Amino acid sequence: MQNYKLTLCYDGSRYKGWQRQGNTDNTIQAKMEMLLSRLLEQEVEIAASGRTDAGVHARMQVCSFRANTDMSADVMLIKLRKHAPDDIGIIALEPAAPRFHARLNCIRKSYVYKIWNSAEPNVFERKFMYNYPEKLDISAMNLAAEQLLGEHDFSAFCTKRTKKSAVRRLESISIEKEGDIITIMLTGNGFLYNMVRIIVGTLLEVGSCQRSVDSVGEALRSLDRQCAGFTAPPQGLFLWNVEY
Amino acid sequence: MQNYKLTLCYDGSRYKGWQRQGNTDNTIQAKMEMLLSRLLEQEVEIAASGRTDAGVHARMQVCSFRANTDMSADVMLIKLRKHAPDDIGIIALEPAAPRFHARLNCIRKSYVYKIWNSAEPNVFERKFMYNYPEKLDISAMNLAAEQLLGEHDFSAFCTKRTKKSAVRRLESISIEKEGDIITIMLTGNGFLYNMVRIIVGTLLEVGSCQRSVDSVGEALRSLDRQCAGFTAPPQGLFLWNVEY
Repeated sequence: MQNYKLTLCYDGSRYKGWQRQGNTDNTIQAKMEMLLSRLLEQEVEIAASGRTDAGVHARMQVCSFRANTDMSADVMLIKLRKHAPDDIGIIALEPAAPRFHARLNCIRKSYVYKIWNSAEPNVFERKFMYNYPEKLDISAMNLAAEQLLGEHDFSAFCTKRTKKSAVRRLESISIEKEGDIITIMLTGNGFLYNMVRIIVGTLLEVGSCQRSVDSVGEALRSLDRQCAGFTAPPQGLFLWNVEY
Repeated sequence: MQNYKLTLCYDGSRYKGWQRQGNTDNTIQAKMEMLLSRLLEQEVEIAASGRTDAGVHARMQVCSFRANTDMSADVMLIKLRKHAPDDIGIIALEPAAPRFHARLNCIRKSYVYKIWNSAEPNVFERKFMYNYPEKLDISAMNLAAEQLLGEHDFSAFCTKRTKKSAVRRLESISIEKEGDIITIMLTGNGFLYNMVRIIVGTLLEVGSCQRSVDSVGEALRSLDRQCAGFTAPPQGLFLWNVEY
């Protein structure tokens, strides 16, 4: 069995997220497993660096899978590109070391959340940004974001808590405005379910003066989801970069 | 009756073009007339600078219409923005001089055609570019394009010919490649049905060595549609600018 590293991008608009729920459902994992299984005439199971929620995009998602085939990775890449739907892009496919695993070996991930911050129309990028026309105080948002940096229990910034540890290290958050577009980039060693979207929602509440800068640190320490802000919608979110 | 100038942009993907065919059909004109007629409680007829075909986009489309209302243009703009579908953007609405007519007064238009010239995936802009991965000779395309500049009978670059004059003045064509994106911009005093898409298709045949540079001037002089190239698909085309 050869191990492979597969790098994808996708427009998540019409999918119910990465993770397969049945065998033929409308998820990116199910779609890719079906494509690879047909192509290689064997059952293929794919592991990704992490799940993305329904409607969330990936500029870069890294996966791994094992298969037994004589087909070269280059030929597989060409065939996959030919058969992939136009909202899933096959960036690269290469043989990987036997023990490489896309989720277990991932050491750092970045997400980008894009906001269209204007009452002007945004017809051509509307599916890849959250439309939030209210005026925002970017420096207050940056001050609030700083309170989340470092290693913390992020229980307050997570839905569907399990008993597993909610401790993660958030290495950086930057909030930049260029023209009418606000780009929030977050990098860390791991992210909980909905964590990026709840952080973004909370920062938007700070930026629009619905909550104080200090309330963000207080929410973090409370470990209580009720103390954090709303969950920003999925269409502005991109899994941006995955590091090994 | 007050006369108005309305500036729009749209993602043409799901529309059967600008021009109304019935009263409730899936065209941009029908959609906008319905919105304005409901808002102003009177029948409103809209004239645009020109039609766009099914699937063609507009970065800027200018329209005019007359209405009898006490509502200010600013309030109309806000209400229109609120009710417009998310693939039609209301850029501006302002009172116009009584004799202003979006089509009759237009003196110059520009179109842009975008091509994704790579085998790499292009997931996020796929609806706004034509995917043409073959290698292209841009300088041959520019040489061929020069043969079309000036005032000519463009019958060879037009489908559905009527008896009206096919003489138009093409003021400029530029073909530029930046990264994997080729942008073709055309400016002129008017364009025939499918003219931009046939010019682009013909230039693509030159760029991929399927026809000679000189064959483009020959096609122009033939006045015969059969001598020009294929009609490039609509999704790469934008009405870009309209001048008065």
